[in-house]
Amino acid sequence: MELRGACIFGQSGGPTSVINASAYGVFDEALKSGCITRVLGAAHGIKGILNEQLYDIGQEDPAELALLKSTPSSALGSCRYKLKSADEDDADYRRLLEVFRKYDVRYFFYNGGNDSMDTCNKVSKYLQKVGYECRVVGVPKTIDNDLAGTDHCPGYGSAAKYIAASCAEIALDAMVYDTGAVTVVECMGRNAGWLTAAASLANLQGAGPDLIYLPEVPFDTRRFLDDVKRVWEARHNCFVAVSEGVHDANGVFINEYASKAGGTDAFGHKQMGGAGAYLAGLVKEELGVKTRAIEFSLLQRCGAHLASRTDVEEAVLMGREAVRAAVSGVTDKMVAIRRQAGEGYRPQTALVDLTVTANAESVFPKEWITPDGAGIEPAFYDYALPLIQGQPDYCWENGLPRFAKLKKVPVK
Amino acid sequence: MELRGACIFGQSGGPTSVINASAYGVFDEALKSGCITRVLGAAHGIKGILNEQLYDIGQEDPAELALLKSTPSSALGSCRYKLKSADEDDADYRRLLEVFRKYDVRYFFYNGGNDSMDTCNKVSKYLQKVGYECRVVGVPKTIDNDLAGTDHCPGYGSAAKYIAASCAEIALDAMVYDTGAVTVVECMGRNAGWLTAAASLANLQGAGPDLIYLPEVPFDTRRFLDDVKRVWEARHNCFVAVSEGVHDANGVFINEYASKAGGTDAFGHKQMGGAGAYLAGLVKEELGVKTRAIEFSLLQRCGAHLASRTDVEEAVLMGREAVRAAVSGVTDKMVAIRRQAGEGYRPQTALVDLTVTANAESVFPKEWITPDGAGIEPAFYDYALPLIQGQPDYCWENGLPRFAKLKKVPVK
Repeated sequence: MELRGACIFGQSGGPTSVINASAYGVFDEALKSGCITRVLGAAHGIKGILNEQLYDIGQEDPAELALLKSTPSSALGSCRYKLKSADEDDADYRRLLEVFRKYDVRYFFYNGGNDSMDTCNKVSKYLQKVGYECRVVGVPKTIDNDLAGTDHCPGYGSAAKYIAASCAEIALDAMVYDTGAVTVVECMGRNAGWLTAAASLANLQGAGPDLIYLPEVPFDTRRFLDDVKRVWEARHNCFVAVSEGVHDANGVFINEYASKAGGTDAFGHKQMGGAGAYLAGLVKEELGVKTRAIEFSLLQRCGAHLASRTDVEEAVLMGREAVRAAVSGVTDKMVAIRRQAGEGYRPQTALVDLTVTANAESVFPKEWITPDGAGIEPAFYDYALPLIQGQPDYCWENGLPRFAKLKKVPVK
Repeated sequence: MELRGACIFGQSGGPTSVINASAYGVFDEALKSGCITRVLGAAHGIKGILNEQLYDIGQEDPAELALLKSTPSSALGSCRYKLKSADEDDADYRRLLEVFRKYDVRYFFYNGGNDSMDTCNKVSKYLQKVGYECRVVGVPKTIDNDLAGTDHCPGYGSAAKYIAASCAEIALDAMVYDTGAVTVVECMGRNAGWLTAAASLANLQGAGPDLIYLPEVPFDTRRFLDDVKRVWEARHNCFVAVSEGVHDANGVFINEYASKAGGTDAFGHKQMGGAGAYLAGLVKEELGVKTRAIEFSLLQRCGAHLASRTDVEEAVLMGREAVRAAVSGVTDKMVAIRRQAGEGYRPQTALVDLTVTANAESVFPKEWITPDGAGIEPAFYDYALPLIQGQPDYCWENGLPRFAKLKKVPVK
């Protein structure tokens, strides 16, 4: 059962506030493991393996590795690289096998979302096919929370906390003048509304969005304007949260409306603004009231200063569990989180077939959307609140967060 | 010397993360004062006095008042209301005097920036002229840090910390892919570059903006493109921080270039995007590289979750000092902060004539801008770092900040 050899860990897809916490979990566990002979980090995910750009993690200062727990973004670099099917073109796979053989890599851990689990799955199946013994385990990561096979995904809790807290603050700011305004915040989430739904948590603190639109409900601009008008008439103010991915019943994204209507940028190009900016413009045009559009942009995924301690701890745990599982013989799986039945939040780790998670997407449950399609049911609070609890331990320096500084020593 | 009577406190202008901390300072000190008979809060600044919309602060729960220290935005509501000159039209002043007489108001504290100090000054001079005994003291507030007569202004430290920490995080996020990108963040500051300069502090943490443009230097788009190109060629990535108020040598704001060039929104209106969005579009057009524009928008002024403890404490102190000074006989002044000469940061309070502060603006010192006009000298760090130190005490609830909930009992 014992398999001796090196391990490679890679980060893939969009960064999160806690992807490096999973890296820490993998590194710390692998460095302590008796049968993992060397711990390698791939620069820019799978690309770093193909380019043989690998770092020797054993050379890092343990104190800096520990700081990865509160360092956002992908410390090793990330990629969006789609592996072709091996049946179609196996050049990448042969190259990867060559690198694995050269460094005697027997463990491969890949940290990412849907596309990354697809990569992980393909690598796993190829290595099985050619009979190269290597244990492959995926580590889940995505702010979008759309990864199948897990109750929730590391990265989501911190992004949700960022969005909820920021919306609570914006709600207070947006109502200081008695002249009123319509404020539209846009959250990430092309196909899944999990992030935008988190804006609703601000309402628990006294003030938050009046209206929330997710991509799971076909968007109707007429109804939207009626909704805004109704809120405006009631309280001379309106706060809207909208997902970047809202689209009409024909599947046309709302932000495409701007360019369809002939809007251009200063260079004559079709206007490419987001759904929030378009809808704020629409409200201004139709209702003649003051509007403001706010995009959370990158900060919702890299604002580690507002990370959830629960999320950080689960991200570390997912990394550790991937190593422990692989060392004990598991392969071709992704580690996952399940909730135990009964009172309170009691998470437990689980293993999911890579084939399953690589080919499915988890969307926001319809039953947690209010019947009018413009709000979130309290049942979602029970799901989400445990995920945003607690503040991580930060290291402060110069009044600012001190992030991990890795040496990134190239492997010899 | 002792003057008995009620006090009125009002908040004016754009909110900050710590304007309520000053409110707490005023309220707590005034409620304890033996000669202030009643503490009133004006709804929406001076407008609340004119409309006789006043809250009885003595009715509030002291624990909720204490939470004002970590509650962003203007808890009483704010306004942007410009008083006419009393010589021109004294209707507002007569109404104000009527309200002051009705409630026997003998102390007036007004919390705001340049325009608000102008209001405060006008009220003070009018009351002197008509011989109504009332002590008027301004409490400084602005994220822009452009208030004259004070070393720095409560609100700035927290906004600077928000911008610096967010830039440190965005810098990490913006360099995860080996494909590179040009990221442009836009900070508030129409005439003064203090906020945008704070982005430079991120560089102390390992990664921050490569290029920084303040309104104090005439903006040249040709030179800007050369700057970006040079950085891009050196490291295949570029991070730019730009002030909303950058303008060319003729005083034309850079964001006006978009509409001048014929850009329109989806409704045929002239495009109204910010300087950052315009410059990101320009880089994409001219250099053909991937770009992203990020606006910090309201969060830089209301992101109290990233406030500076020093700023919070100084904001409270400014409120307290205003009351103490007035009670001791001072009027027609604004409280201010000075730095004592010598080693380390040793602030002390001071008093400035309202006439002085109402008619001047403090801009970013030219000698702290690098000779190429695209960077900040380290001398600024010595100025700014003390202002962003420490984390305030937060009250957390539901995993989110718990803000003050005032009863706002109308005064009888």
